[in-house]
Amino acid sequence: MQVQKLALIGFGNVGQALAKLLLKKRADIKVRYEVDFIVVAIRTGSHGRVVNPQGVDLEQALNLIETDESLDSLGEPGPEDMAAWIQATGADALFENSPVSYSDGQPALDHLRTALENDMHAITANKGPVVHGFHELKALAQSKGRKFRFESTVMDGAPVFGVTREALPAANIRAVSGVLNSTTNLILNRMESGQAFDEAVAYAQSIGIAETDPSGDIDGWDATIKLAALVTVVMGEALDIKAVARKGIREITKEDITTAKMQRKRWKLVCRAYQTDQGVEASVGPEMVGQDSPFYFVDGTTSIVQFESDVLGKLSVIEENPSPMTTAYGLLADWLNALGVARPY
Amino acid sequence: MQVQKLALIGFGNVGQALAKLLLKKRADIKVRYEVDFIVVAIRTGSHGRVVNPQGVDLEQALNLIETDESLDSLGEPGPEDMAAWIQATGADALFENSPVSYSDGQPALDHLRTALENDMHAITANKGPVVHGFHELKALAQSKGRKFRFESTVMDGAPVFGVTREALPAANIRAVSGVLNSTTNLILNRMESGQAFDEAVAYAQSIGIAETDPSGDIDGWDATIKLAALVTVVMGEALDIKAVARKGIREITKEDITTAKMQRKRWKLVCRAYQTDQGVEASVGPEMVGQDSPFYFVDGTTSIVQFESDVLGKLSVIEENPSPMTTAYGLLADWLNALGVARPY
Repeated sequence: MQVQKLALIGFGNVGQALAKLLLKKRADIKVRYEVDFIVVAIRTGSHGRVVNPQGVDLEQALNLIETDESLDSLGEPGPEDMAAWIQATGADALFENSPVSYSDGQPALDHLRTALENDMHAITANKGPVVHGFHELKALAQSKGRKFRFESTVMDGAPVFGVTREALPAANIRAVSGVLNSTTNLILNRMESGQAFDEAVAYAQSIGIAETDPSGDIDGWDATIKLAALVTVVMGEALDIKAVARKGIREITKEDITTAKMQRKRWKLVCRAYQTDQGVEASVGPEMVGQDSPFYFVDGTTSIVQFESDVLGKLSVIEENPSPMTTAYGLLADWLNALGVARPY
Repeated sequence: MQVQKLALIGFGNVGQALAKLLLKKRADIKVRYEVDFIVVAIRTGSHGRVVNPQGVDLEQALNLIETDESLDSLGEPGPEDMAAWIQATGADALFENSPVSYSDGQPALDHLRTALENDMHAITANKGPVVHGFHELKALAQSKGRKFRFESTVMDGAPVFGVTREALPAANIRAVSGVLNSTTNLILNRMESGQAFDEAVAYAQSIGIAETDPSGDIDGWDATIKLAALVTVVMGEALDIKAVARKGIREITKEDITTAKMQRKRWKLVCRAYQTDQGVEASVGPEMVGQDSPFYFVDGTTSIVQFESDVLGKLSVIEENPSPMTTAYGLLADWLNALGVARPY
């Protein structure tokens, strides 16, 4: 039985869901993979930080956050400086889920680099470091004999990177497309039910799907960054997000929705990228899709990605109705895959 | 650069497509994985057999089959007895694609067992040995440090086993469903276009999708065997095909098709299996599915599988318009995965 030391940066919805999933799956993981873990450090944005080589009590940590208290009582704080703190944790794997800037992937990119430099597996649900640092972090990980993993960055925990990394050897992926942003998909659904654009946005905000400033979703930024992450990893070309022809859904009117319905079509915010002789062409924008496309079916927060390759034609993966637990599962899967323990046959 | 010795049993559509794909991908595989190969033996049903430790010329072999000639001129025949012949090939991996009996998985099951006993990876597109021998062959492979692989048995080369084996660690798959038989799906499509059942069957036969005796597809046997293979492998329980509540599509009438259309639904031959306290319950039969199901959009020879797990909700994989080359790709992927060379990061 190997005992892995884990550190967490970021303890919001995703970090807490990961903690709960780790507790829930501990016994199963011990039996299946002969792996156990202790969480040796947690660093939060507004609830303090803790380093404890004996193991932080995860249930206590979750309870403290629940009652809006600091984690400081669970061990020593460790260094203020982030790089020194990461090193001081002595962890075998770092889960990085702190707030990130999409324009440069920071500070997550620095955290992940520091983790790898200190011989830790580096695992994140943040898209920014993939878009801005995949090739660097991949090379660093390989030089260290560690792994950089990020399954939860696109379609939550659904294995969209896993399927291309592990189950499609010798395939050349020539095109990637998908419906990857659930907020816009939900808004378009509400408009199909008769709501105006602004009403639909307000609804998505009221149930916590859209943010107070919904422009990151509505103007196609989130979809663009997800597409860039996919292209960078599965097509092997770094894609500048500014090179993506990006259009959001602000200009879709009730009349557009009616037009689509009359043609038995639906509006979807579609991501597309394909290989050309001059490199990858990529776009994000609203399209009317018909029933001959699997995109037509994608409702609410469900999402789909489609890979076109030289060996398999069109292969699609659909994830229905994800939750924070789904994102946490992607992180857990990343960790077990990084350890290389999880092959049943 | 490692050079792997390959042997092929069965050189029909699938075996020939594999030979063509191996030739097409040779340069790419050498560069990416530092693996090359020689085909040291081929055994056909009606075009002779050959063992050649220096390597059988694959292009010559394909040309001979094209002109309906025997392969005997390409080397020595090797032993008549199959087990002795497999051993005599001295191969590192055996691709088994000979005609198989669904009732007991023979003779493929014996061929694969012999390959593993002789320290070869054992790879097949035949479902029978998975249904009747998965747990035995898996254990034998593990004891020998080799792999038993069968990606092409369900949904051609689409990574339905790969995704569950390699990309979903620590997941408990509680239910599997899908539209897995393309012949019946095509027949139901034609009936939606106005053809009677018999006309639709004749059409499917005329384009080479349905066999002269189409009962294996129409009565749900092919779908049942695929479902049994999935359950056996991904849910870990051997499923007796006789325990599957099986119903084919013979009784679907023009009136049934009209009824479905009026409800904006479509008939599909749906496979379902789910975990209960008493074991796995499984069924194959026609269902009317609505637009709230991704099964609705599965047209023609496209197929879909859906996994329900404790960690991801519903995850679906769709493969559109497969070809013999797709099946060959599954075999190629199995081989590269067996070698463990194919992880880009």
